[in-house]
Amino acid sequence: MLTDRLNSNTNIRISLPAVCFVWQIAMIVLFGVFIRYDEESDVRKWIEFKVSHNITSDIENDFYFRYPSFQDVHVMIFVGFGFLMTFLKRYSFGGVGFNFLIASFGVQWALLMQGWFHALDPDTGKISIGVESLINADFCVASSLIAYGALLGKVSPVQLMVVTLFGVTLFAVEEYIILSLLHCRDAGGSMVIHAFGGYYGLAISWVLYRPNLNQSKRLSGSTYHSDVFAMIGTLFLWMFWPSFNSAITDHGSGQHRAAINTYIALASSVLTTVAISSMSDKRGKLDMVHIQNATLAGGVAMGTAAEFMITPYGSLIVGFCCGIISTFGYLFPMMEKYLKLQDTCGIHNLHAVPGMLGGFIGAIVAAAATEEVYGREGLIETFDFEGDFASRTVLTQGGFQAAGTCVSIAFGVVGGVVVGLILRLPIWGDPSDDNCYDDEAYWEVPEEEESIPPVLEYNNHMTRKHPDM
Amino acid sequence: MLTDRLNSNTNIRISLPAVCFVWQIAMIVLFGVFIRYDEESDVRKWIEFKVSHNITSDIENDFYFRYPSFQDVHVMIFVGFGFLMTFLKRYSFGGVGFNFLIASFGVQWALLMQGWFHALDPDTGKISIGVESLINADFCVASSLIAYGALLGKVSPVQLMVVTLFGVTLFAVEEYIILSLLHCRDAGGSMVIHAFGGYYGLAISWVLYRPNLNQSKRLSGSTYHSDVFAMIGTLFLWMFWPSFNSAITDHGSGQHRAAINTYIALASSVLTTVAISSMSDKRGKLDMVHIQNATLAGGVAMGTAAEFMITPYGSLIVGFCCGIISTFGYLFPMMEKYLKLQDTCGIHNLHAVPGMLGGFIGAIVAAAATEEVYGREGLIETFDFEGDFASRTVLTQGGFQAAGTCVSIAFGVVGGVVVGLILRLPIWGDPSDDNCYDDEAYWEVPEEEESIPPVLEYNNHMTRKHPDM
Amino acid sequence: MLTDRLNSNTNIRISLPAVCFVWQIAMIVLFGVFIRYDEESDVRKWIEFKVSHNITSDIENDFYFRYPSFQDVHVMIFVGFGFLMTFLKRYSFGGVGFNFLIASFGVQWALLMQGWFHALDPDTGKISIGVESLINADFCVASSLIAYGALLGKVSPVQLMVVTLFGVTLFAVEEYIILSLLHCRDAGGSMVIHAFGGYYGLAISWVLYRPNLNQSKRLSGSTYHSDVFAMIGTLFLWMFWPSFNSAITDHGSGQHRAAINTYIALASSVLTTVAISSMSDKRGKLDMVHIQNATLAGGVAMGTAAEFMITPYGSLIVGFCCGIISTFGYLFPMMEKYLKLQDTCGIHNLHAVPGMLGGFIGAIVAAAATEEVYGREGLIETFDFEGDFASRTVLTQGGFQAAGTCVSIAFGVVGGVVVGLILRLPIWGDPSDDNCYDDEAYWEVPEEEESIPPVLEYNNHMTRKHPDM
Repeated sequence: MLTDRLNSNTNIRISLPAVCFVWQIAMIVLFGVFIRYDEESDVRKWIEFKVSHNITSDIENDFYFRYPSFQDVHVMIFVGFGFLMTFLKRYSFGGVGFNFLIASFGVQWALLMQGWFHALDPDTGKISIGVESLINADFCVASSLIAYGALLGKVSPVQLMVVTLFGVTLFAVEEYIILSLLHCRDAGGSMVIHAFGGYYGLAISWVLYRPNLNQSKRLSGSTYHSDVFAMIGTLFLWMFWPSFNSAITDHGSGQHRAAINTYIALASSVLTTVAISSMSDKRGKLDMVHIQNATLAGGVAMGTAAEFMITPYGSLIVGFCCGIISTFGYLFPMMEKYLKLQDTCGIHNLHAVPGMLGGFIGAIVAAAATEEVYGREGLIETFDFEGDFASRTVLTQGGFQAAGTCVSIAFGVVGGVVVGLILRLPIWGDPSDDNCYDDEAYWEVPEEEESIPPVLEYNNHMTRKHPDM
Repeated sequence: MLTDRLNSNTNIRISLPAVCFVWQIAMIVLFGVFIRYDEESDVRKWIEFKVSHNITSDIENDFYFRYPSFQDVHVMIFVGFGFLMTFLKRYSFGGVGFNFLIASFGVQWALLMQGWFHALDPDTGKISIGVESLINADFCVASSLIAYGALLGKVSPVQLMVVTLFGVTLFAVEEYIILSLLHCRDAGGSMVIHAFGGYYGLAISWVLYRPNLNQSKRLSGSTYHSDVFAMIGTLFLWMFWPSFNSAITDHGSGQHRAAINTYIALASSVLTTVAISSMSDKRGKLDMVHIQNATLAGGVAMGTAAEFMITPYGSLIVGFCCGIISTFGYLFPMMEKYLKLQDTCGIHNLHAVPGMLGGFIGAIVAAAATEEVYGREGLIETFDFEGDFASRTVLTQGGFQAAGTCVSIAFGVVGGVVVGLILRLPIWGDPSDDNCYDDEAYWEVPEEEESIPPVLEYNNHMTRKHPDM
Repeated sequence: MLTDRLNSNTNIRISLPAVCFVWQIAMIVLFGVFIRYDEESDVRKWIEFKVSHNITSDIENDFYFRYPSFQDVHVMIFVGFGFLMTFLKRYSFGGVGFNFLIASFGVQWALLMQGWFHALDPDTGKISIGVESLINADFCVASSLIAYGALLGKVSPVQLMVVTLFGVTLFAVEEYIILSLLHCRDAGGSMVIHAFGGYYGLAISWVLYRPNLNQSKRLSGSTYHSDVFAMIGTLFLWMFWPSFNSAITDHGSGQHRAAINTYIALASSVLTTVAISSMSDKRGKLDMVHIQNATLAGGVAMGTAAEFMITPYGSLIVGFCCGIISTFGYLFPMMEKYLKLQDTCGIHNLHAVPGMLGGFIGAIVAAAATEEVYGREGLIETFDFEGDFASRTVLTQGGFQAAGTCVSIAFGVVGGVVVGLILRLPIWGDPSDDNCYDDEAYWEVPEEEESIPPVLEYNNHMTRKHPDM
């Protein structure tokens, strides 16, 4: 009965199915009205395209340029982000499960939102999608998953669906402003994904501040095995980050260079993270929180500059600095102290700050680009100095890149505050302060952990019934 | 002594090594007689092939079209299926380990069986293999792994080897009938893999019905961490399913479209699975069984239609419906009740029904194909209306697709009953009713779980000796 | 206080950060002086390269030939090796975490060392890097990770950094001798990676022999879940081994054939491993140690021959034999008994012996090559009989391959002894004999395992504080 009272507010039997059904049906209708295959995935159009573009081999289809990177990004979104959030001792189901739910919804909404802004054919009123659209949808939803990191354990799945609905919407708008209007380059999304997603999540968490959250302190740590699970997330993010930053860069040297730069920056981050983590303990012991998170900072920070000619040692320096900055962020959690902001996964240190830095690094590297290094044609190709932007100089480009970073942060903060206020309505089934970080609230959890009754002692009180068994 | 008696029937010290050695030696002999590299993997033939086909670049080698998808499929077979079956509290070794064993045997036998039916050169009497053969071998063995899902925890590894030997054999025959004689299209195997494998496993399980299986009930549930392990399987299956359904489709738009359609259908499945799972609990709590399984139904059901022009919203609808149907299947396990059929992993709801539906969906989409949408050339390319089948209409094709689905089910049911009867012979070392779902029967299991003696208390009774230590 | 005394020798608060910082800064300086993008990853050079080589499509960039394989190899290095080493009950953090650290350092140093030997432009004094360099760096560091397998749980992270520094250095030299001077072929590194890395680790472990290691016996076993974690490592190594052995082979049929051969050999290893493991137990029970390790022996042994025309049944035979040999190695750990050598992960049986065998298998297959099978052009392409080596015969080549194997072993043994002596200096913070296999020495470990206090019982003694929470 006591448990019943406690959980009374987390009953989502009506709201969660309602949201899932209504939104999924809306997706079907909108996809029906708007979304079609593009010329590389439609059998008729591709045959015509090959003829009209004088292409002799199917290997020229964009699928073969981008699909391997797409699958790596896909793993980052679902296994990387999902398992990184399994570190809590009793919120692993929620970490990996809700990540799965909101990413699955988010990519659908992202295909529409990004399609309206970037791929709407004015004649037919249709959006054309291909493998690059799938990558962009995964990218888009990443920003909402980052925001989930700040909220982990403190919100209901219904709230997360709302966070994702608005997150994807805001993302599409800021991305349009930054990439299309300001004509910034941001292949790996330091600005549009990480800085935006980070500040979006932090602003929501700030509005949802829980002064009595220490009532759930018993569950706010990790266990030995939950930390190992989280390492699965860390490593898949770390390993595939070169694919993330190179997935939608220019064919040829662009993808090649972005992968190299990211690989190098990440390697450097690991060493400085370990160094600072060890220095900060009186016996030099490492902290899993740092290893799980700060090692990734180099990848975040290279999101904008990876496709530029930042040079290999430039990448090393970026990883070096960001590993340090990120680990210091975990060591001195100022925000909870001074800002009354609870950030479960520390996304401030992993995404917000390195993302912002990455935006400015991109601005500097862009401003420092020279025709000597890039070649005339290379400069045009790399920065897309064509059409309306044919006369833009690298210095101006640098300025716009910096401006873009500010836009992404502004969108994150303002959008997050608004969404946070919406989430404070008492209708979403969020847990009470003494009920956070607990899978019991939203999942049927096996009762007895690890205690297997001995053979021949028949225990008819089953922990969980498995169907058809 | 009690334990000895219990286990007395599970001694496989002679049978398992015998089966492994005899079959592996048979493979070596048969490979020696029959299997050779194809013209794209043989150094001499490839050089000649490039000249004869006027190919200037090695990138035209089929390896570059299909290898990334192959590796994704490979991960699904070994990590996806393997870890999905780790959910039981004390059968994780058997889940992932026996999956590993039978898949490794199955792919070898599949290269031969599929080779004899599809790639035997009548002049030389040799089978030529390349990367597409490897994908097909992985596909073929998937059907036996699905069957394992129904039998998990109730059979011995020797029985599983028998299941796989016959499963692969039956697969090759039904695949030949469906793909070659009936000239169906089934790129992702809704019919030939999932419907066949599902009904094959169910029929075996039906013949092997254990009325006293509740004597093992103490072990038939999950633990918190075993459920998290199973999510590794779920997610790798879910993420790589677009590769599964596109791995052997036509180069160019075919692979591209199949990946997009599957991606979309799967996203939709997740939302309806969550909705139904939440609705079915009085407090709206989600059930891990549903999340681990029903979320995949959209991928299964798109196995046939993924390469067709089903349209993105068509894919959404397929995923929408199959998520619901599959989750309902888990909620109302009629089969155990009415059919006396124990289906450990619920493959009826995940593979059999969605696979069958996928076959019929494919039939409908094929029958509804028009020259307007596909283009004349596209229609021929997509449905292979060439040679003997040049005059076939889409309507006829639809009929044959439906017939193919029935053939696959018939093969599964009849083959499964026969194999089940073979497995009832008392020679296979299967566990007794009170000994099911227990790794102790076939594995050396570490004795003490999770209890680490404190530092300085030397416990000389080791749980497991590690060699060379 | 007792714990303090015990740990007193493992304080690495100064040494670990110092090593990380100094070495990482050195990397930045050396990268700045030496490392540049190659002509396929530099935007300017690639545009010029396309013109000068008359290339019309970006798909000809080496990125598209090798990047998917690179990412598979990357997963093997970080998840494969890392998780394979999580099997110990209380050293999972160290297994996966230190693997992460030393691999991240090692790849940087490898880019330099391998660059100086293989890619230094004599005119500019610069090293050009591209995706193939990244693969080679991952390969290079694999040998140090293999060595870590023998040392697991008995050394400090500072020592591991030293092992890696020298390991990478020695690797680059032996690789130069074997591949460039002796002109051997060794695409998957049976010789240069596995035999070298294996004997390097064994020699170090021999020098560091701990007679009283049984004081840590309480921690030298596995638990149920740590064994499942280790299977993640095993499977990702097993699945991606075809990519490992084909990653840097010739474009076209070379990569294609290497993947097929490795796939086949690995499948065969699994069956013979299971057979021997089962035979060796009186009830036929399988041992996880064998399944986790010996199943991989076929991949190791195919490292040299995979790109040759070894034929599919030849690959089966290699896998067959190596599965048996490797499992017998685990069953009869002679080395600890007779050689006073402690090999935590059994790398002798998994890497050293199969690697050595792989070298000799490669020698035999090379010597047996005929123009009939390879074609004249194919022979030249496969064995690089060009330039100074245009007149070399296959028989001579076989002799040099055998010689190369001996060189790699010699480098491993001699180098390992020297490095082992360096590591015996009392400055590295290694654990005492009763403190081995224990994450407590170098990690902040959550105190209470798996015991979650019941709801509403507020436990203010947190296991681990998570920042920003």
